Amino acid sequence: MADFDLMRSLSQTAQTKIVLLVMDGLGGIPVESGGPTELEAALRPNLNRLAAEGCLGQMNPVGYGITPGSGPGHLALFGYDPLKFDIGRGVLEAFGIGVHVGSDDVAARGNFCTVDPSGKITDRRAGRIATDASKLLVDKLAKIKLPGIEIEVKPVKEHRFVIVMRGMGLSSCLTETDPQKTGVPPLPVKAIEPKAQRTADLFNEWIAQAGKILADDHPANMLTLRGFSGDPRLPQFNEIYKVKSACVAVYPMYRGVAKLVGMQGIAFEGDTPEDEFRAAAKIWKDYDFLFIHIKATDSRGEDGDFAAKVKVIEKVDAALPTLLASKPDVLLVTGDHSTPAKLKSHSWHPVPLLLWAPETVRPDTETAFGERMCARGGLGTFPTAELMPLALAHANRLMKYGA
Amino acid sequence: MADFDLMRSLSQTAQTKIVLLVMDGLGGIPVESGGPTELEAALRPNLNRLAAEGCLGQMNPVGYGITPGSGPGHLALFGYDPLKFDIGRGVLEAFGIGVHVGSDDVAARGNFCTVDPSGKITDRRAGRIATDASKLLVDKLAKIKLPGIEIEVKPVKEHRFVIVMRGMGLSSCLTETDPQKTGVPPLPVKAIEPKAQRTADLFNEWIAQAGKILADDHPANMLTLRGFSGDPRLPQFNEIYKVKSACVAVYPMYRGVAKLVGMQGIAFEGDTPEDEFRAAAKIWKDYDFLFIHIKATDSRGEDGDFAAKVKVIEKVDAALPTLLASKPDVLLVTGDHSTPAKLKSHSWHPVPLLLWAPETVRPDTETAFGERMCARGGLGTFPTAELMPLALAHANRLMKYGA
Repeated sequence: MADFDLMRSLSQTAQTKIVLLVMDGLGGIPVESGGPTELEAALRPNLNRLAAEGCLGQMNPVGYGITPGSGPGHLALFGYDPLKFDIGRGVLEAFGIGVHVGSDDVAARGNFCTVDPSGKITDRRAGRIATDASKLLVDKLAKIKLPGIEIEVKPVKEHRFVIVMRGMGLSSCLTETDPQKTGVPPLPVKAIEPKAQRTADLFNEWIAQAGKILADDHPANMLTLRGFSGDPRLPQFNEIYKVKSACVAVYPMYRGVAKLVGMQGIAFEGDTPEDEFRAAAKIWKDYDFLFIHIKATDSRGEDGDFAAKVKVIEKVDAALPTLLASKPDVLLVTGDHSTPAKLKSHSWHPVPLLLWAPETVRPDTETAFGERMCARGGLGTFPTAELMPLALAHANRLMKYGA
Repeated sequence: MADFDLMRSLSQTAQTKIVLLVMDGLGGIPVESGGPTELEAALRPNLNRLAAEGCLGQMNPVGYGITPGSGPGHLALFGYDPLKFDIGRGVLEAFGIGVHVGSDDVAARGNFCTVDPSGKITDRRAGRIATDASKLLVDKLAKIKLPGIEIEVKPVKEHRFVIVMRGMGLSSCLTETDPQKTGVPPLPVKAIEPKAQRTADLFNEWIAQAGKILADDHPANMLTLRGFSGDPRLPQFNEIYKVKSACVAVYPMYRGVAKLVGMQGIAFEGDTPEDEFRAAAKIWKDYDFLFIHIKATDSRGEDGDFAAKVKVIEKVDAALPTLLASKPDVLLVTGDHSTPAKLKSHSWHPVPLLLWAPETVRPDTETAFGERMCARGGLGTFPTAELMPLALAHANRLMKYGA
């Protein structure tokens, strides 16, 4: 990982602008032996030009063979060792929708689910009920009161919601209630350590009351909770690297992880890459580090839709001139992890990286942006958490170490 | 190295089969500038096909520039940091021939040698006496008794034997008696720390009595002892990775190191690669991780016989269809270290790696298996101890890290 004390001592302010463009789950693998990956199959003249002018490499977000979740993948991109800084899903989701999680609070990610008359889960996502339907249910749940604590419940998307309990002496050392399979009932919340017993009791009481409220609903007649977590109090990005940073992202979770490290979330209209690049252009003068997050590459990868993932990449490529018009000094194009359509899930494969910095880059011999090219690229294979020092260096934002 | 706690938390059982095919000392260097290495010179159509379909890389077993012994080289392949887990030669040899080394025991590897009338060594291996002759001598030595301890002496191969002392308060913190050159007498055993003094005295007394027994023999009229060591109590491979593992190896030492980490040694007839692959096929259903060890690549490398090492590789290649017929999900072809025929010894050069996994691999641009190709391969250059996480990931045996 980036050594934060070293970064603090070497980082300096400058007039340069850095853009970290993350296509979520960018990395892929061929569907057939010898075939192209999603990135290699895409029509990508702009990315290829940047690759020819810049330098390529590939990165391991957590470690060799380790498949990262979205939280660890992004923490690594921001320079945080994801094995050292562990953030729960509850906090990530809460921050993403603007719900504060203070130092005494415990957040959890909730899923509405469907249970049969005997209480066994038949659908872990309640048929992915519409966000509007979910909101109505959350409004009902928000009326549950428990003694000595405050409770906030907020809808996220579809069947997902967030619950935060606030009060003295709470602990997030709790087991999850989602059994991760159907045919069995939700599990009770259990305390992993004795001091968490009261919090476990509170969550179990809340779940019991929620179950009664939901009982007559269909298909969302029950819920599960997971990712119990508190404020991880991360070292702050802007202080470590001496930048003013902002996040342009469509999905709450990615604004959430950016907010956790202290980036400013930017509100904007629309949800296409073009919309995101326009939003970036609008705030260009006010920030010097922009994290731009494209979600759809990952979503289409998880769908197993190779062609659709290719199209997302092509859309980003086509919109790139809008981003380049602002003239970034350093542009990093990469992913937080790989999501090969063939595997329909996140994977451990290294993440392709394109580093473009017209004034400072040492180019390699590669002339197109793809996984095979990145594996031969001039930056080699390295841990994702080393990317931030590279980005700052190419932006003249790191001083010399030693005399 | 593989983080064992992380591996324990992420590893999961699966129906997939992993084969780790180790050609001992596989890596080489050209004899003449511009020429091929042993691997590159070999006729290897099967390996080249696997290379084209799979992904290449190169690994450092211990560190840049560090030449590994067989123990460290194999520990690294199994995911154990060889700088953290240090296993003595004595224990390795003992385990290899089925001699138990308990927590209170001290094992040493012995060599019969030849000394002149003044006691100076003239041949450190006593002309590599035949195993049968060695056995007769070992039978005589086995009769030596010392107060308060049990002693077990067993022949290995040719001039090699193993001695294990068993009793309370023994210590393996002892210096070796082999001076590693001729023209000087064997050294006395010395205690490296005070608590080992009694053990040093016991070994010196045993050596004195053994010297008298051997005095009239020829050429094996003396012996040296090295690799004093106790049970290293290694974390267990099957528990860490959630696999059922087995070892197919001709030489005792490699079954020994496999047994140390908890792999099941497999008895079989014959000693060719084809015999080993047939043995693997026979036990295919009972295990999901097979470590197959080919010794002759290293032996011919140590002989300095480039052409003979090439032939061993060709033999392995020719036998590969037998192994592939069982349809492994992940096949790793590599070495424990390099043994270039030109250097006639183990070396520090990175070890070529071929990773073949038809369902999950991301191929690179390389189409043949050789050191030069591996240096450009898609897996990059990495520590050997990271291989196990990669192997498990490609076999769908590692869960995602973090949400």
